[in-house]
Amino acid sequence: MRASAFHITTLKEAPNDAEITSHRLMMRSGMIRKLAGGIYNYMPLGLRVIRKVEHIIRQEMDAAGALELLMPVVQPAELWMESGRWEQYGPELLRMKDRHGRDFVLQPTSEEVITDIARNEIQSWRQLPVNFYHIQTKFRDERRPRFGVMRGREFTMKDAYSFDRDVASAQKSYQVMFDAYMKIFSRMGLTFRAVSADTGSIGGSQSHEFQVIADIGEDLIVYDPASSYAANIELAPAPCLLTQRQAASAPLTPTPTPGAAKCEAVAELLGTPLSQTVKSIVLATDPEKGPAQVWLLLLRGDHELNEIKTGKVPGLNKGFRFATEAEIIEHFGCKPGYLGPVKMVKPVKVIADLTVANMHNFICGANQEDFHLTGVNWARDLPEPDLITDLRNVVEGDQAPDGKGTLAIQRGIEVGHVFYLGTKYSEALKATFLDEGGKPALMEMGCYGIGVTRIVGAAIEQNHDAKGIVWPRAIAPFEVAICAVGWGKSQAVRDAAEALYAELKAKGVDVILDDRDLRPGIMFAEWELIGPPVRITVGERGLNDGVIELLGRKQTEAARVPLSDCCTQTLALLETY
Amino acid sequence: MRASAFHITTLKEAPNDAEITSHRLMMRSGMIRKLAGGIYNYMPLGLRVIRKVEHIIRQEMDAAGALELLMPVVQPAELWMESGRWEQYGPELLRMKDRHGRDFVLQPTSEEVITDIARNEIQSWRQLPVNFYHIQTKFRDERRPRFGVMRGREFTMKDAYSFDRDVASAQKSYQVMFDAYMKIFSRMGLTFRAVSADTGSIGGSQSHEFQVIADIGEDLIVYDPASSYAANIELAPAPCLLTQRQAASAPLTPTPTPGAAKCEAVAELLGTPLSQTVKSIVLATDPEKGPAQVWLLLLRGDHELNEIKTGKVPGLNKGFRFATEAEIIEHFGCKPGYLGPVKMVKPVKVIADLTVANMHNFICGANQEDFHLTGVNWARDLPEPDLITDLRNVVEGDQAPDGKGTLAIQRGIEVGHVFYLGTKYSEALKATFLDEGGKPALMEMGCYGIGVTRIVGAAIEQNHDAKGIVWPRAIAPFEVAICAVGWGKSQAVRDAAEALYAELKAKGVDVILDDRDLRPGIMFAEWELIGPPVRITVGERGLNDGVIELLGRKQTEAARVPLSDCCTQTLALLETY
Repeated sequence: MRASAFHITTLKEAPNDAEITSHRLMMRSGMIRKLAGGIYNYMPLGLRVIRKVEHIIRQEMDAAGALELLMPVVQPAELWMESGRWEQYGPELLRMKDRHGRDFVLQPTSEEVITDIARNEIQSWRQLPVNFYHIQTKFRDERRPRFGVMRGREFTMKDAYSFDRDVASAQKSYQVMFDAYMKIFSRMGLTFRAVSADTGSIGGSQSHEFQVIADIGEDLIVYDPASSYAANIELAPAPCLLTQRQAASAPLTPTPTPGAAKCEAVAELLGTPLSQTVKSIVLATDPEKGPAQVWLLLLRGDHELNEIKTGKVPGLNKGFRFATEAEIIEHFGCKPGYLGPVKMVKPVKVIADLTVANMHNFICGANQEDFHLTGVNWARDLPEPDLITDLRNVVEGDQAPDGKGTLAIQRGIEVGHVFYLGTKYSEALKATFLDEGGKPALMEMGCYGIGVTRIVGAAIEQNHDAKGIVWPRAIAPFEVAICAVGWGKSQAVRDAAEALYAELKAKGVDVILDDRDLRPGIMFAEWELIGPPVRITVGERGLNDGVIELLGRKQTEAARVPLSDCCTQTLALLETY
Repeated sequence: MRASAFHITTLKEAPNDAEITSHRLMMRSGMIRKLAGGIYNYMPLGLRVIRKVEHIIRQEMDAAGALELLMPVVQPAELWMESGRWEQYGPELLRMKDRHGRDFVLQPTSEEVITDIARNEIQSWRQLPVNFYHIQTKFRDERRPRFGVMRGREFTMKDAYSFDRDVASAQKSYQVMFDAYMKIFSRMGLTFRAVSADTGSIGGSQSHEFQVIADIGEDLIVYDPASSYAANIELAPAPCLLTQRQAASAPLTPTPTPGAAKCEAVAELLGTPLSQTVKSIVLATDPEKGPAQVWLLLLRGDHELNEIKTGKVPGLNKGFRFATEAEIIEHFGCKPGYLGPVKMVKPVKVIADLTVANMHNFICGANQEDFHLTGVNWARDLPEPDLITDLRNVVEGDQAPDGKGTLAIQRGIEVGHVFYLGTKYSEALKATFLDEGGKPALMEMGCYGIGVTRIVGAAIEQNHDAKGIVWPRAIAPFEVAICAVGWGKSQAVRDAAEALYAELKAKGVDVILDDRDLRPGIMFAEWELIGPPVRITVGERGLNDGVIELLGRKQTEAARVPLSDCCTQTLALLETY
């Protein structure tokens, strides 16, 4: 490709709505242009990256035996009604009517359609296992689209769906996809972790996320540097920090804590460690009949509630909300900030985190404004909790669940997700096959997504510097940029640049020749922003000495390389990206 | 690819709604599966063909210097309001609202978005010319989707848009695309014609359609076998068949023609040639103010009205409709079937086709039920027409417009269309650039479409026999199928088939090895239906003689070929497809 025949329009400044680095750099380098909120044009430069990402995915999916097909963007509502998701899905599901008034959706994902295909196409166990995938436009009508391609509304996703005759076979299919994903993200040159994850609303019972490590990530990843353990913080079990409960040794004492409604303020006021305090969180559930039920959850003052774990507590697993102030006053006789499990006005179910259940002489709200209780002890001052369970997020330094080391925490951007679905969809859509005995059986399903366009943003978050993007070679829009300095004036420059361009192309290198005759400063800044791994500068001064300049994008100083050696050294330098 | 690892599900019968051959064969071979009216899943077999079609298009577009980008499926209504098409487009434009109530459309085409990109990205004449294209999902909410992928609602289209600084440059861009299209459809192995076409509602002033010749085609193509002339019948000028008007020689005579409301019936009743009759067509226009205006169009009895030409008549070029019976009775005092230009009750504008204007002693309706007039002559019996112009479709045998031969007519399926748009969209969206003199000028535009998914149907309409599809090699889902007969039983068959499979793959042949251990009859019928150009049969009997069977899809008898020679002969046979 020649730059004069390509479309390069970089911007000095990113628009104001670009809040994060990848969004800013994609706008500035001209990879994307905004069409509407969360809807972007992929310009030629951006599309080159997307195509390389897709190519790697397609190769590894094919190698793993998955079959590519293409399901439509517009899907009939009937199938979504059959699965129940027409009701369950919120406003993120974009719904519309055709000219005859029939309901359709813009697909956010394709479980329904693929299950419909499977029930029509697959009759016998002989046709199983099978794994279908497509790379297709998706739409999720996010309430607040932002971060460019990271949380857009229209985006490209690869989604695969496996169908198996039994659980054992389905778990093999899951593992095949897991392994393929490891290869895919490795080939892209990304630093990532596969982490155990919650299965969430999509259903199913086993799940891993593939998280690209980046400070901007919305997910917290918990891992053990000493082992292979890694999980989304949503799922990572938190240990009990106190092996056994010690005997009470302080009297129960109501203590004035005026204005100290948070544990941090109470600990500071009383001069005690935060780990001596207990925070009270009041939740409510709305049963189908009767008034709301109120629950009290107790966590150590320095810990945070994990809502995924909370949602798995029997009684809370059909949905919960934070209690209203009226409900709180009704049960505790006190406004929030000073609540506790001792002497409630109208006692509620009390759930204690594992650690809280083993605390002694602790501090909690007194159910009286501006007062806390110190020296609180289970059994002596209040009944044992109704339930003791893991309610909190792990923190750095917690013991790893595999017992090998202590946990560390990183932020990650989810770019892939594998789910073992079981029969959730095959049951809803009655997708059966005849087993070896000739009896109908439900297909065991898995689903496997990769956010194609999000990968581009995640890769940039992980690979950039102050000047611009620093692409891993595998997904760079170009591998090499040849900057011809003085193109217009110097035949020697043109000849040397053209020869090098031809030589690199012949070696299969994805190279762009910058023949735009720009000033070197402008040209260099543009390629630093766009970020191909290698930049070669061909200029008259160097040519007089028989050399060109070779610069890796991560290097600060260019190497002077003899013309005859340039191709070889370029290939070697590329190997390091 | 091995058939055991692929998804092949052929059907004995096509569903009832499959009215045409390509639809039936695509359903039966398992290329597509219907999801909703006009919305199809492209199954792995069908997607292979689509990908080959896309690959050829992409290669030739890139070679022609066009730049690929990707514009979204969901587009904001604002741009469509700016161009005026939000109002003009009928219910084929699927409109919807997002969660915030903002209007969006599912793109049927992308003139608005690309023009928006151009006005933002292109500031200077130095950035021109440029041609952007994408291959993307389109949606047109057809009232009556049918014929499978031929007139679907969701489909894949390649659309390109050129931007130039002036008309001369735009015409060069147009020619570059025209040439690229010739290469694209030639490479696909299709028999097609590039024909002059009407520019229709998309605007612009020059246009060619690329029509795949097929009996089922909805378009009539007029061509001169003796020259390069070819046009859509909508556009082909029809000659005047009478060089001059002869003098009146028969008396004007009201003649009873009871029940003969059509020219054919009148001619038969009166024993005159159909070419002596004149048919009256009454149209109406609805001006912004005042009552409808009624027009009378006169065509020779054996000719057909060309509505595109009619729509270009001054006064009718802002839209017309057929007159209501009430309007007809008001102006002619008679119900339809017996109308004519002589002695109207309330005279209307009369437009005569070129040939009608030179007729003498002709027959037309008498404006009296069950009566026609014979011996009608211009000037003597009625005033000269208000306008004489070409109103009719050409017929076989008409003189070609280039004067070289006589016209023939074929049916075609439109698979590509190139338009010179001029400044229609750049004016509406104010897409200007600074010219060499530093003054803002409107960009000259062209647009260029190819119906990717429709090509698949068109190719099948043109290439099939009673057994199934007969693919041109370039877009066949597989080039070669190796049928291993007795796979389960015979090690010799397995070894020979595997060796051949490996050899052909190494030569770059797209080959599928049928290792499903099916009975030969079933296997052969399936591959005849699916239609790869070459089938190789490896069986124990042949192997005993050291031969396999090689069969081209168009051949009826297989050749016995020595194993050692099979690869070479397969490659040679493939060359003929």
